[in-house]
Amino acid sequence: MAGNSFGQIFKVTTFGESHGSYIGVVVDGCPAGLFLDLDFIQLELDKRKPGQNRLSSSRNEDDKFEIISGTFEGKTTGTPLCIMIKNKDVQSEDYLVYKDFYRPSHADFTYQKKYGIRDHRGGGRASARETAARVVAGAIAKLILKNLNIIIFAYSYRIGEVVLQDNYELLDLSLADKNEVKCPDAAMAIKMIAAIETAKFEGDSIGGIVQCIIQNCPAGLGEPVFDKFDADLAKAMLSINAAKGFEIGSGFYSSTIKGSENNDDLVKLKDGSFKTKTNNSGGVLGGITNAQDIYFRVAFKPTPTFAKARNLVDEKGEIVKYEDIKGRFDPCIVPRAVPVVEAMAAIVTVDHLFRNRCANLY
Amino acid sequence: MAGNSFGQIFKVTTFGESHGSYIGVVVDGCPAGLFLDLDFIQLELDKRKPGQNRLSSSRNEDDKFEIISGTFEGKTTGTPLCIMIKNKDVQSEDYLVYKDFYRPSHADFTYQKKYGIRDHRGGGRASARETAARVVAGAIAKLILKNLNIIIFAYSYRIGEVVLQDNYELLDLSLADKNEVKCPDAAMAIKMIAAIETAKFEGDSIGGIVQCIIQNCPAGLGEPVFDKFDADLAKAMLSINAAKGFEIGSGFYSSTIKGSENNDDLVKLKDGSFKTKTNNSGGVLGGITNAQDIYFRVAFKPTPTFAKARNLVDEKGEIVKYEDIKGRFDPCIVPRAVPVVEAMAAIVTVDHLFRNRCANLY
Amino acid sequence: MAGNSFGQIFKVTTFGESHGSYIGVVVDGCPAGLFLDLDFIQLELDKRKPGQNRLSSSRNEDDKFEIISGTFEGKTTGTPLCIMIKNKDVQSEDYLVYKDFYRPSHADFTYQKKYGIRDHRGGGRASARETAARVVAGAIAKLILKNLNIIIFAYSYRIGEVVLQDNYELLDLSLADKNEVKCPDAAMAIKMIAAIETAKFEGDSIGGIVQCIIQNCPAGLGEPVFDKFDADLAKAMLSINAAKGFEIGSGFYSSTIKGSENNDDLVKLKDGSFKTKTNNSGGVLGGITNAQDIYFRVAFKPTPTFAKARNLVDEKGEIVKYEDIKGRFDPCIVPRAVPVVEAMAAIVTVDHLFRNRCANLY
Amino acid sequence: MAGNSFGQIFKVTTFGESHGSYIGVVVDGCPAGLFLDLDFIQLELDKRKPGQNRLSSSRNEDDKFEIISGTFEGKTTGTPLCIMIKNKDVQSEDYLVYKDFYRPSHADFTYQKKYGIRDHRGGGRASARETAARVVAGAIAKLILKNLNIIIFAYSYRIGEVVLQDNYELLDLSLADKNEVKCPDAAMAIKMIAAIETAKFEGDSIGGIVQCIIQNCPAGLGEPVFDKFDADLAKAMLSINAAKGFEIGSGFYSSTIKGSENNDDLVKLKDGSFKTKTNNSGGVLGGITNAQDIYFRVAFKPTPTFAKARNLVDEKGEIVKYEDIKGRFDPCIVPRAVPVVEAMAAIVTVDHLFRNRCANLY
Repeated sequence: MAGNSFGQIFKVTTFGESHGSYIGVVVDGCPAGLFLDLDFIQLELDKRKPGQNRLSSSRNEDDKFEIISGTFEGKTTGTPLCIMIKNKDVQSEDYLVYKDFYRPSHADFTYQKKYGIRDHRGGGRASARETAARVVAGAIAKLILKNLNIIIFAYSYRIGEVVLQDNYELLDLSLADKNEVKCPDAAMAIKMIAAIETAKFEGDSIGGIVQCIIQNCPAGLGEPVFDKFDADLAKAMLSINAAKGFEIGSGFYSSTIKGSENNDDLVKLKDGSFKTKTNNSGGVLGGITNAQDIYFRVAFKPTPTFAKARNLVDEKGEIVKYEDIKGRFDPCIVPRAVPVVEAMAAIVTVDHLFRNRCANLY
Repeated sequence: MAGNSFGQIFKVTTFGESHGSYIGVVVDGCPAGLFLDLDFIQLELDKRKPGQNRLSSSRNEDDKFEIISGTFEGKTTGTPLCIMIKNKDVQSEDYLVYKDFYRPSHADFTYQKKYGIRDHRGGGRASARETAARVVAGAIAKLILKNLNIIIFAYSYRIGEVVLQDNYELLDLSLADKNEVKCPDAAMAIKMIAAIETAKFEGDSIGGIVQCIIQNCPAGLGEPVFDKFDADLAKAMLSINAAKGFEIGSGFYSSTIKGSENNDDLVKLKDGSFKTKTNNSGGVLGGITNAQDIYFRVAFKPTPTFAKARNLVDEKGEIVKYEDIKGRFDPCIVPRAVPVVEAMAAIVTVDHLFRNRCANLY
Repeated sequence: MAGNSFGQIFKVTTFGESHGSYIGVVVDGCPAGLFLDLDFIQLELDKRKPGQNRLSSSRNEDDKFEIISGTFEGKTTGTPLCIMIKNKDVQSEDYLVYKDFYRPSHADFTYQKKYGIRDHRGGGRASARETAARVVAGAIAKLILKNLNIIIFAYSYRIGEVVLQDNYELLDLSLADKNEVKCPDAAMAIKMIAAIETAKFEGDSIGGIVQCIIQNCPAGLGEPVFDKFDADLAKAMLSINAAKGFEIGSGFYSSTIKGSENNDDLVKLKDGSFKTKTNNSGGVLGGITNAQDIYFRVAFKPTPTFAKARNLVDEKGEIVKYEDIKGRFDPCIVPRAVPVVEAMAAIVTVDHLFRNRCANLY
Repeated sequence: MAGNSFGQIFKVTTFGESHGSYIGVVVDGCPAGLFLDLDFIQLELDKRKPGQNRLSSSRNEDDKFEIISGTFEGKTTGTPLCIMIKNKDVQSEDYLVYKDFYRPSHADFTYQKKYGIRDHRGGGRASARETAARVVAGAIAKLILKNLNIIIFAYSYRIGEVVLQDNYELLDLSLADKNEVKCPDAAMAIKMIAAIETAKFEGDSIGGIVQCIIQNCPAGLGEPVFDKFDADLAKAMLSINAAKGFEIGSGFYSSTIKGSENNDDLVKLKDGSFKTKTNNSGGVLGGITNAQDIYFRVAFKPTPTFAKARNLVDEKGEIVKYEDIKGRFDPCIVPRAVPVVEAMAAIVTVDHLFRNRCANLY
């Protein structure tokens, strides 16, 4: 049953496989009159494209997008936007070897079981290449948010054992774009890069955590009791390839402490508005935003593809020894997941901004 | 905008406030011909009802449900089931004091900001009382799963600093029902109870983690790329009151390790089926179940209501000293969240079982 | 699969069977702050209640509703409204005779085929009694529309061979409430009543057409290309029991004429707005409202229940002679369908008003 | 708000404007393992393509489609199908004249009002060119139905004053493909063609009615009380450009007769199944199919574009005289609407086939 759409009012549908001719996205429900800043979209896409540096897959894609529909004289018209990205550097023969077995901790086995057929080339639809389409949709969402001064930042918070301090307010988040590991702390970035390079050198891969902050989001977003803002964020994040966990605010840590430590007391500002002294809630209470920073973390497992020789079982149940994995892959998915986390956060925020327009009467 | 429904085929809609006349649920899409075992539903409801013991709220509710529609001669007819539970022990006067201020880390402020109006009595719609309606829907889902031998267990995995070992396979999960803290390890249960009682004695509250396992679930459930099985689980869990985090399989821990440690290699069993040697994936790969145990954890923050005297700010911005909080509340929400986690897991599983019926042609 | 909800933002879910304890409705997505005028809702309900006069079913229901959730101090709170109506005059024994056969042109056969089980008492869920729940939801929608001065009128346009003139502008629509057949032309009302009484006297039933007008609806409602305003109206109307046809504006007649006859030329008014000289479009162009009157017609078949003796076939395939049908029924459903048509039109209009809030950027 | 998708399980999303680079469709929820017969899809597309003969628009499109995603080795994989059609014969300069005014009875005015911006070239998104994307999706649906021996036929039932007899069973429906007006009665086809040519000669256009029959559809499809089979058909049909009415079975005629004339009595066949003696219900009772033929009619208004000189009002409110309309258009839309009606009927049927899979327990 159809599961390739996300959002209720700002509805994003992606399509395309890793080794097909294109991947793409339809954004239905984008309001009319938005100036589509093509350079901005390209910049966003460039952040996740492969082949950027020694840490990422050697797949060489320039990831230029084409707008197929939904604009007129540079602006959105309210009709569905279709945007596509050509798959260029497709080396399907590298994947022939995967026709015969289910790669461990990949989706090969589950796609086969579900559909009875699978495109083994480059992971098919389960490939992280699909997330390029999400980044395009996220860029459009960000353009809408920009006009409202809502800003979304994500960064590598942890790679393996290398972990930043908790308090993002002490960081200059804009620095995350300055290094190839997307970490706003230059010293820690060097350690993260070392951790990834070590894993790669060992023919292994490594996991990590992305932290994301949404700033200047107004109070009131979120539709209890099921479509809570944080519930939709959680779904959005777990829908990203290799994501294994989500926490908001004090998250899992809150499970270890007392109420008197975790509660965020309110203070009244001079302009009459309320602020919380602390923000353990992460900007969401009862599923609705409270105008404080929204921050959350997403855990990513280590890439299941790595070069180290291993014994694997093929579809016939026979043991096969692999000394090398031919497909292109990242030793650590986290730096390239950063823009995808931002994209999904932007999509959730825009969708809930629109949903909230109907909370009150007029 | 409407946000009180969950599920696409097996669609659950809850309604009702803490201090209204009833809370209830409409289950639309329950297949016809299901024998509705009323005793089972009551048993499930009893697991979360308040006033069970010294650890939970003193609100005294017998939580008897009434079936309003959707059955004929004891069986479901395919028409929507409406089931309601009367609110009996409503002491709204206890909440008058809350009319004047936003309780910290509660939803008072956010509901007021979103809707411009709020029912301050007992938290209104944001009260955990709403989850009784989810437990009813979950019980119906469990009846469907029972026929397929799919079993769902949840238990208290952590309370404050007291934490069980990771490996649930070494536990007799059925023991979780034997103690008031819903912990399958009798010795640890005693420690958990002590932790809660200590918090209560201090006029404080405490957080914790629920672990849940879905057993015998067939391969193939989950609808990539957005309605992945784990993405929908994450949303379901974060939609529960006080939930702050979700992780599946090796979860956040996977972010700290190498691919060679985290990958689950496949082995072929004598009957021709595949099994993974380990299960760090938690039973889901690429968003689709792989027929291994599905297990996940949900973090709950400490109850934001507790008795300790504090300074709070009212809606006028004035500081008010509270020496006592009159409403009824649990010093730890975790034991009563256990059946709610099971209920939401059951709803997700049934919905995806039905969604998967259309994955193949005939 | 769940099919008992209508609307995307203003979402209406009905439940309940003819001979159950209650029928009811959940309205999710009603904006907060709406004063719920209970007298108005009761007035609307009274328009469709049975036993009003000699033309309608002798089922005697006072149709008093109870608000279960969603209001606080008389106003909506943004949480789901649940409203229920008790079924009082339930004479289920009258329907025992229907246990054994499928009434012709009723839903008995199809419910049995679809669900493998059916509540034969009074038609169960397929009974027109379900429409009382729609009228309640429609009354809430009308309260929202009232504040925007959007007015919805429906009336009996045709009963059997008795048919009004086309031009509703020549009628005083408010007169439709003055007679039991809901016809705004007093002279024609007498003929319509005679037609129904003749059919009843003959032990027969008779069909008819309801015409409905939505006035003062702003331009811009409707979401092409599938959720067009008229497409959603058509669905809403065909979802009413016994409805067999829908047409908007010049409708079926437009299929017989030339473009030069059917086109509505635009004129510019002094205030700068546009008006069409004629309104063959019925207020909708390209699926979007154009600020002219929206008008449409809904055809209803004659009630499939009537007293005349007939040979029927039971579920075992045996011929049974019926000299009398014991259940209560209307010889003509049209007068009681009038408020249901209005209710569904109001629900569609409110839902599209809210959907249109997201057409533009800010 | 997003309105460009149709269907719940078999979900069709179209995109693209008349004068953009492509129009296309994403079909999400198509089951895996379907052999995609490309020749069949092309044949279906060819039925509606323009420039086929003197009756249709002179726009010259070969309407070759490209499959962008969702197949592997000729079969569907369960992932979203994206199929696109290049717009070749785009003469946008012909439409410059339309930049300055709202064409009467077109969607120009309403799109402008709704979105504040519009692509005036060839009608933009409101162009009937969008229906080519529906025909592609419909062809895929038909491939699914073929395997179940469910057949859908549509034909021109009326053009202006030329109208076929009611009883489609007396016609050889396959003959509809033999003439350019898609009428299965050769003699009447000649009259219909004459009516269209006369209108064209007069610089005018003409309306008509399409009749459609779904044969061998099993009992049980349709999800009361809102997503009834006929309600979804009505929405599907009214979503087609220029459609103004829908009726099923005896439709509007049923409003003029008695119950004893309209009821369909049941007879039991030797194989134990039931059949109705007549089929005034049109194959649907209580919103659920009853295994009889489903037949319905869709009324189309005359094309609002025609050559006759007229006075029109531009956006500035000034009167402009048009002696000629430069864009390409059909004097009668009905023959080219025939395959679109079939396509939408196929989509509704497939979606409900899948939805019905969850009506019963296992």
